[in-house]
Amino acid sequence: MNKIKAGIIGASGYAGAELLRLLLAHEDVEVVAISSQSYLGQFIYELYPSFYGICDMTFVADQDVLEKSDIVFASLPHGLSEKYAKYCDENNKKFIDLGADFRLDNEKDYQDWYRLNYSEKGLHLKQVYGLSEVNRKQIKNATLIGNPGCYPTSIMLGLYPLLKEQMNASYDIIIDSKSGTTGAGKSLTEDTHFPKCNESFHPYKIGCHRHTPEIEQELSKMADQKVCVTFTPHLLPINRGIVSTIYVPLKDNIKIEDVYQIYHQYYDSEYFVRVLPEGKVADLKFVKYSNFCDISLHYEPRYHQLIIVSTIDNMVKGAAGQAIQNMNIMFGLEESKGLKMVPPSF
Amino acid sequence: MNKIKAGIIGASGYAGAELLRLLLAHEDVEVVAISSQSYLGQFIYELYPSFYGICDMTFVADQDVLEKSDIVFASLPHGLSEKYAKYCDENNKKFIDLGADFRLDNEKDYQDWYRLNYSEKGLHLKQVYGLSEVNRKQIKNATLIGNPGCYPTSIMLGLYPLLKEQMNASYDIIIDSKSGTTGAGKSLTEDTHFPKCNESFHPYKIGCHRHTPEIEQELSKMADQKVCVTFTPHLLPINRGIVSTIYVPLKDNIKIEDVYQIYHQYYDSEYFVRVLPEGKVADLKFVKYSNFCDISLHYEPRYHQLIIVSTIDNMVKGAAGQAIQNMNIMFGLEESKGLKMVPPSF
Amino acid sequence: MNKIKAGIIGASGYAGAELLRLLLAHEDVEVVAISSQSYLGQFIYELYPSFYGICDMTFVADQDVLEKSDIVFASLPHGLSEKYAKYCDENNKKFIDLGADFRLDNEKDYQDWYRLNYSEKGLHLKQVYGLSEVNRKQIKNATLIGNPGCYPTSIMLGLYPLLKEQMNASYDIIIDSKSGTTGAGKSLTEDTHFPKCNESFHPYKIGCHRHTPEIEQELSKMADQKVCVTFTPHLLPINRGIVSTIYVPLKDNIKIEDVYQIYHQYYDSEYFVRVLPEGKVADLKFVKYSNFCDISLHYEPRYHQLIIVSTIDNMVKGAAGQAIQNMNIMFGLEESKGLKMVPPSF
Amino acid sequence: MNKIKAGIIGASGYAGAELLRLLLAHEDVEVVAISSQSYLGQFIYELYPSFYGICDMTFVADQDVLEKSDIVFASLPHGLSEKYAKYCDENNKKFIDLGADFRLDNEKDYQDWYRLNYSEKGLHLKQVYGLSEVNRKQIKNATLIGNPGCYPTSIMLGLYPLLKEQMNASYDIIIDSKSGTTGAGKSLTEDTHFPKCNESFHPYKIGCHRHTPEIEQELSKMADQKVCVTFTPHLLPINRGIVSTIYVPLKDNIKIEDVYQIYHQYYDSEYFVRVLPEGKVADLKFVKYSNFCDISLHYEPRYHQLIIVSTIDNMVKGAAGQAIQNMNIMFGLEESKGLKMVPPSF
Repeated sequence: MNKIKAGIIGASGYAGAELLRLLLAHEDVEVVAISSQSYLGQFIYELYPSFYGICDMTFVADQDVLEKSDIVFASLPHGLSEKYAKYCDENNKKFIDLGADFRLDNEKDYQDWYRLNYSEKGLHLKQVYGLSEVNRKQIKNATLIGNPGCYPTSIMLGLYPLLKEQMNASYDIIIDSKSGTTGAGKSLTEDTHFPKCNESFHPYKIGCHRHTPEIEQELSKMADQKVCVTFTPHLLPINRGIVSTIYVPLKDNIKIEDVYQIYHQYYDSEYFVRVLPEGKVADLKFVKYSNFCDISLHYEPRYHQLIIVSTIDNMVKGAAGQAIQNMNIMFGLEESKGLKMVPPSF
Repeated sequence: MNKIKAGIIGASGYAGAELLRLLLAHEDVEVVAISSQSYLGQFIYELYPSFYGICDMTFVADQDVLEKSDIVFASLPHGLSEKYAKYCDENNKKFIDLGADFRLDNEKDYQDWYRLNYSEKGLHLKQVYGLSEVNRKQIKNATLIGNPGCYPTSIMLGLYPLLKEQMNASYDIIIDSKSGTTGAGKSLTEDTHFPKCNESFHPYKIGCHRHTPEIEQELSKMADQKVCVTFTPHLLPINRGIVSTIYVPLKDNIKIEDVYQIYHQYYDSEYFVRVLPEGKVADLKFVKYSNFCDISLHYEPRYHQLIIVSTIDNMVKGAAGQAIQNMNIMFGLEESKGLKMVPPSF
Repeated sequence: MNKIKAGIIGASGYAGAELLRLLLAHEDVEVVAISSQSYLGQFIYELYPSFYGICDMTFVADQDVLEKSDIVFASLPHGLSEKYAKYCDENNKKFIDLGADFRLDNEKDYQDWYRLNYSEKGLHLKQVYGLSEVNRKQIKNATLIGNPGCYPTSIMLGLYPLLKEQMNASYDIIIDSKSGTTGAGKSLTEDTHFPKCNESFHPYKIGCHRHTPEIEQELSKMADQKVCVTFTPHLLPINRGIVSTIYVPLKDNIKIEDVYQIYHQYYDSEYFVRVLPEGKVADLKFVKYSNFCDISLHYEPRYHQLIIVSTIDNMVKGAAGQAIQNMNIMFGLEESKGLKMVPPSF
Repeated sequence: MNKIKAGIIGASGYAGAELLRLLLAHEDVEVVAISSQSYLGQFIYELYPSFYGICDMTFVADQDVLEKSDIVFASLPHGLSEKYAKYCDENNKKFIDLGADFRLDNEKDYQDWYRLNYSEKGLHLKQVYGLSEVNRKQIKNATLIGNPGCYPTSIMLGLYPLLKEQMNASYDIIIDSKSGTTGAGKSLTEDTHFPKCNESFHPYKIGCHRHTPEIEQELSKMADQKVCVTFTPHLLPINRGIVSTIYVPLKDNIKIEDVYQIYHQYYDSEYFVRVLPEGKVADLKFVKYSNFCDISLHYEPRYHQLIIVSTIDNMVKGAAGQAIQNMNIMFGLEESKGLKMVPPSF
């Protein structure tokens, strides 16, 4: 088989660079071009010395990426992806957007949370939300994917079987999430200045993080009912990984054993979702640098409350890895291709 | 005035060593003796080289500490403090227990959670729960203090005005807490082995942490009603500090402005509790190495939910610092004496 | 081609676990058995949850590993490898020792530094020092490899071209090395207790680290002259990676340009050694989780002094990765097989 | 006694903020004003929330600081301090410069390394190099202090007795230093962006760090002979602290016992310099947040080489603390006043 020609628009950011790193190890893919407007003409290894001697690509113009690729990945600030998606749509190329522009079904949500309109409204009718395990069938036939956000991925996989089977007693769900600093990206900020960030911990954007509408949209689909979340992200002084601790009261007639059974039923055949044995606790340590989502289930008997701990690597399952997983699905490849490395333990 | 003669039983552990460090800077206190059964006869600086050249005390026998001191601090594993408290009680010395033996009013709770009985039942009638800001009056006249746990301190100060004024719509409260590793103490464990702990994050003892009965006991007193908590502690890969993120639905008629007003009313005269201005978020960074508790209040209007973020240094306000604050109260000293250092910002 | 049957003795330690992780991704290898005396019968994922759902091997007895394998890797405390090596020698199996037992040519050195004798003296005549880039020819035909230590690997690759071409003005070389904590292994120690290790930095075993004789032995071979080193290792509060900063005065007639030329001549064809462009500085960040050794060269013109900065991942090029590289050489495979992953940049 | 009126110019930077933190705890000092051009009019706690509720000073204009203060501390980028020093000189106020403008005796060095001239040449004749332990007598009578750099302080205190007593066999000294990130200051940089800096380690400015001429100037005075240093700073992924590992061959007739004896002779009466007992190793952990300099001495008998490990907190003894120590000397106060806190062990 010919290799898939893949290109990356916005490859100078963290998600783009991680995508490049993973695609270079994917034996069915050839990365044909990478672009960056800020670093046009520079070698990738000037920005990321880890590529030195392995990849001598330079950042080219966006148009070069579009023309050379069978599939285009875009990793851009919100509001910039539509024109690339349109080009791909018109030229019969596949497009996976790692940003937020093709995640929200309802333009109103996009306007409310991102303060922008959809320019190409028709295009958004074609978008498929790329949560691989849940939307596999639609992804298979899609040409335009809105790749899920990092926090939402950890949360949705954690809640999917529960909501789908309607085992929860409430649709107001409290989600306390914690993310490593790569989630904040490559741009320098006060919060990610080492002397400030190191030995620090705090929540941020409480009640107003832009992942909220995406989470509620998808959870509501799963539950077939309006789901509301209180979502509080925190910044962890580590590089990678998200832990979401999710609190949901169970229906009276549901036992913790039932919950385990359903989770195993949904996920035992999923390569990338690991439901941990009873008594074990999910730790982002053990999914780092991998595409796994580890889920542990805990029960507070005094209040018949379920506590779900769901953890991913925000740069892999939460961004670049899931994008590749979606590409694999779209091209009919083995879904785990290029993503099977055992996560390092230390 | 003569200096207070203070002694520390169990000074080789983290809380004991922190207490020694702080007491050495307290101008009204003379530390007369420190004990450790494991390190008897050794210099404190052999264990903690930071003391080298400043303090040349050696660990002596417990009895020496008891005899020489006006006030005895004990920092021991649970189940070991009663006999020291009894001696102090009989010999007219004050006693502050930094462990768990004098925190629970109800022996049944102690039996359930610690699997031990109270041997000296009479003694427990005299114990005062040493949450300084809340129980100041009783502490003033107490001779036997159960110094609060670290998690409970952050949680109770965060909830006190709300519960006391009954502004909450529910008495089932979700508390997601995160603590630095010093909370786990000096003993070597797998979880605190650097290559494991570093770049790791996970909850632990979900639904079964021993601070739970203490939290519920004191919150129930504040609320004058049975309060139940879902309490999930997490281990942060940093040295010091606790952040508790607390979720409470507000009563319909309560506005966030009302909440702010009450918190300011309760805490503006408290030196060690800082209610942050609206829009600011509490960060353990800014209370580290200090006795402060920073509280920030956040509102999720869509569900009329209050999110309280409360942060302390687990070794200071969560242990040694609050013990000294209690000593200051008991001896009629300025409450902040020896505890006024500005926390370092970096 | 049939897959190589590989086994690991001592797979519960860090080097063994890393070896397993890497071998599982090596398409020409089948890991047939892993052993551990302490964890006999347990699943690998009980110790290292990152393996959960990917590898369900259990630790078996050493003899099982020996019998099933074409090549045996041993990762054991010193003094324990000889008997396994002997079995392999007698049974026509290849053996790579990741410990210290087959690194020193001179039994006297082993006695002096490790306080043990060689039991199987004949075996040691067959041992080949597995510094892949330097001893490739001997490794190709070897059946018994002493895999280099982590510090020595970073140091020897940093100095090899210089010494081989005798560009140095002195044979007393000062080496200031810094290593992450995984180098200290899985055993709990005071120095790697998180609250102690975090935000700490210090040298250790100054002038008496056991890697010293190994370093001097191999550098002396390169220089064809007795080389003496002042070697000071330091413990870095990070997980992985070594930086060695090496100080060598240059011969009067040698210019820094000459040094660059020679390094490029030696290393440009080496996949795993990257001589950085002038002006760049080697950083362990960019070799982590990879088999690369990055070298940067710096010149202090006032004293005609060369400063070499050499960095590796101590667990990969400094242990498991180089062992696999040696295996590839021994079996006639592409040398970089299974080791080509781009190191992550963050 | 009236309190000393102290002011800080450039209080928004790290050294200025640390100075403020320490001065607030100094009972003989009143901080009368702090300035910042960038943050004029803002509260100190807006920048550094640790000050919230403790200090409600705002940044005022530089001139206000100058007029109100008996002693002015300046913490500014190089090239900006002369005019403030001049004002103080003309108005009979004391001036301590924490920057580099009054450290170099020779204008040529300043021109070579900082690319600037001295505007007020006469002023520089009055400058005293504020290495407290070494220049105490001159500091006592000085009105204008050039406060030493952080690296130089660790290095000079480490070498002072050795050079003064001429026990060294060479005047070419190799110094391998490592510093925490606060040394790089408050400004955002790529190197201190958390995802880059964390789990990273590398040298920088090899052979060209601006502390070099200052180090050589002062060491040469101590040795009464030209001393040359090969100085390699490294960036540690921690907040605070410097470790300098210094390599010096000893004269043939000097024994390690002699070295110990001399170091104790020089430093046993110094409160802030701790010569550690034989067998102990200096660790920045144990001087953090303190004004101590810990020194350990190590001997490599095979080459008769001395290895000195010297460690300080770069923000305290390396900046703000030593400035206060100098102020104490200038005002005839107990030298350790306000600086006696025991460093925390964890």
